[in-house]
Amino acid sequence: MTGDRPAVPLVALLTDFGRADAYAGVLHGVLAAVAPRTRVVDLTHDVPPQDVRAGAFLLLTAYRYFPPGTVFVAVVDPGVGSERAVLAVRAGGYLFVGPDNGLLRWAVEDAGGADAAVRVEHPDYRLAPVSATFHGRDVMAPAAAHLSRGVALSDLGPPAGALSGAPLPRPRPLAAGLGGEVLHVDRFGNCITNLPPLPGEVLLAGRAARRVLTYAEGARAHPGEPVTLAGSAGWLEVALPGGSAAAALGVAPGASAILTPPQGEPSPEGRAAPERESL
Amino acid sequence: MTGDRPAVPLVALLTDFGRADAYAGVLHGVLAAVAPRTRVVDLTHDVPPQDVRAGAFLLLTAYRYFPPGTVFVAVVDPGVGSERAVLAVRAGGYLFVGPDNGLLRWAVEDAGGADAAVRVEHPDYRLAPVSATFHGRDVMAPAAAHLSRGVALSDLGPPAGALSGAPLPRPRPLAAGLGGEVLHVDRFGNCITNLPPLPGEVLLAGRAARRVLTYAEGARAHPGEPVTLAGSAGWLEVALPGGSAAAALGVAPGASAILTPPQGEPSPEGRAAPERESL
Amino acid sequence: MTGDRPAVPLVALLTDFGRADAYAGVLHGVLAAVAPRTRVVDLTHDVPPQDVRAGAFLLLTAYRYFPPGTVFVAVVDPGVGSERAVLAVRAGGYLFVGPDNGLLRWAVEDAGGADAAVRVEHPDYRLAPVSATFHGRDVMAPAAAHLSRGVALSDLGPPAGALSGAPLPRPRPLAAGLGGEVLHVDRFGNCITNLPPLPGEVLLAGRAARRVLTYAEGARAHPGEPVTLAGSAGWLEVALPGGSAAAALGVAPGASAILTPPQGEPSPEGRAAPERESL
Repeated sequence: MTGDRPAVPLVALLTDFGRADAYAGVLHGVLAAVAPRTRVVDLTHDVPPQDVRAGAFLLLTAYRYFPPGTVFVAVVDPGVGSERAVLAVRAGGYLFVGPDNGLLRWAVEDAGGADAAVRVEHPDYRLAPVSATFHGRDVMAPAAAHLSRGVALSDLGPPAGALSGAPLPRPRPLAAGLGGEVLHVDRFGNCITNLPPLPGEVLLAGRAARRVLTYAEGARAHPGEPVTLAGSAGWLEVALPGGSAAAALGVAPGASAILTPPQGEPSPEGRAAPERESL
Repeated sequence: MTGDRPAVPLVALLTDFGRADAYAGVLHGVLAAVAPRTRVVDLTHDVPPQDVRAGAFLLLTAYRYFPPGTVFVAVVDPGVGSERAVLAVRAGGYLFVGPDNGLLRWAVEDAGGADAAVRVEHPDYRLAPVSATFHGRDVMAPAAAHLSRGVALSDLGPPAGALSGAPLPRPRPLAAGLGGEVLHVDRFGNCITNLPPLPGEVLLAGRAARRVLTYAEGARAHPGEPVTLAGSAGWLEVALPGGSAAAALGVAPGASAILTPPQGEPSPEGRAAPERESL
Repeated sequence: MTGDRPAVPLVALLTDFGRADAYAGVLHGVLAAVAPRTRVVDLTHDVPPQDVRAGAFLLLTAYRYFPPGTVFVAVVDPGVGSERAVLAVRAGGYLFVGPDNGLLRWAVEDAGGADAAVRVEHPDYRLAPVSATFHGRDVMAPAAAHLSRGVALSDLGPPAGALSGAPLPRPRPLAAGLGGEVLHVDRFGNCITNLPPLPGEVLLAGRAARRVLTYAEGARAHPGEPVTLAGSAGWLEVALPGGSAAAALGVAPGASAILTPPQGEPSPEGRAAPERESL
């Protein structure tokens, strides 16, 4: 009934369940039982087990491509059954359901912050009994199914406070340029950083990655060398066209990455890097 | 037309095809061609190759979360093309289609046993020609698609006899407690047993796993130690919070697991364990 | 509005994105945003990274099982952002969208060749801005979504020329029989060749694989031995029932495979194998 609801109700799933067990399939079953006309999409079920930060990154980079009103169910939940809350959050026209452990925070903040947030506690919108180990099935999927059918956020439970977890790390000015980090390594071995796509090279694992526009240009102009380019999520990434930059450089998420400005040009954030100007 | 049919026709797929080939995708194509309005859900395609027992376990633990009337297509079929029958079975308001090799049996028995079962043989409900190696595509998916559209079970072929395969192993009383086994190891390394969630510890691979309520309690109260808790399928599982119990203990499906009663208390199934009372 | 459109609009996805990142899920989001009533099926996202030939094989063997009018989006695109075109092609009642690098060619030719082909360039049917690294999201998925809603192929851009890439390799007559190659190794280790299912044995990696009708017959009649049989895609494959023929024989795609006629019988393509007749 709200302007946020899509033409066809849509739920998108992001979990660390893998696909070799039936856990992800069971979410589909619960959703189909509660909301048979809601479409359900697998965003991914292959978040590394219990890696809340990786799940938060994937949700952040994916949510905006879905139609407004999409309900995201995110389950990376090592604290299942403990006192951590299950939240349902409205932000930027989307709905997010998941544990309050930081998993939802980056996407919610990117969408403009929470317009409303509740603790999912009302027994009418859960399976009964609720198990101690699988709240994705017993609490989160039912809540999302009901939300996709038009149940109001406020019906699910009492208001929640601020979301737990750390904010997205931001790059900081350094003498050498702009200091960031690798947020994610993708299937192709591309190292996605939190550095903005400003001019310059990227220093990663002691190697300077030259700037290119496309993987194909990298392969042609700098064969066998790591290169950096503006990636599809809007940040700089370091790639090794035809190979894996992460494997070649021995890099994992969290590794330091420094954007160095082009020779003879000011620092990419010169105003924010006074140390460099004093050299 | 029957009360068993869901609001939206639904087929759920469980196979050992993996997702790196096109076999699972082709099932979707066949289903869409025969029954374009039927929703199709992937329960899993990552049953270990030709592991009928693992497939039977996953189907058993998942089916009940789907709405009544769901048609399950299960394909773990090393005997494809041999004289083994393809069955379609109605049980507990659900429909199951798959080879008669034990794959369907645990779910069918759990659902109350077969209300009706036929051999899927009628040429009108198959692709033509039927290949010798891919009955999931040529026989089972078409049968499920037709069932989801309301074709009667009895139209698919002649009545079938009792299902092949072994029943679900049940725990047995021992002097030390209740003797069961590991039915499944999941992605997180949790060892799911066939032991009921009665009080006590679980002996697995020579280690005693203490009883907890949640993974989080295990991590807090017994850091680095295997613990046991009531898992989401209703049986006891042995977990190593933050790690893999299966890897740490060297355990695979089939391993012996013994539920030992709390100190000073009677055996968890004292009435069924006379050996222990005579000690 | 055309006779090619299916009862329910359907898009099928084939990529090398894997499922551990959100790239495949994002395609679902873009499709749902543009065409909320179109059904979307994952054919596979596990084409080996940047392996255009493997993607072409999987598309070739799968497309015909989908209903006419299905729109296939195929993304194995190491040249993304370079001058390679993105094509939309109509062939055999199907629509294919993907990079012009050979990925679409085998399926298009198998479907009878292109009835029409355009370069996908019209800005109305893309996301804005178009990134340099993810045309699957920004160009191909939107084009497919619009096609599934009835937008005409010719609206997407100017006519394209002949498709790039090599044709499907055909077997050639040899003195010893018919010389082909392994096109694909599947999850079970079956080696799928381009040899027709004519009588005879297959020589692969120095071993003669005896002819059988089913995997079960192979396991019974030639335990532990590689066997050959007519596979589900219509060609001969070499299998090791209960094991992996590819692993046992050390075979990968591209390996030579020779069909040798039965003893005392003429060459399987005698008319095309004059060398053999002169022996």
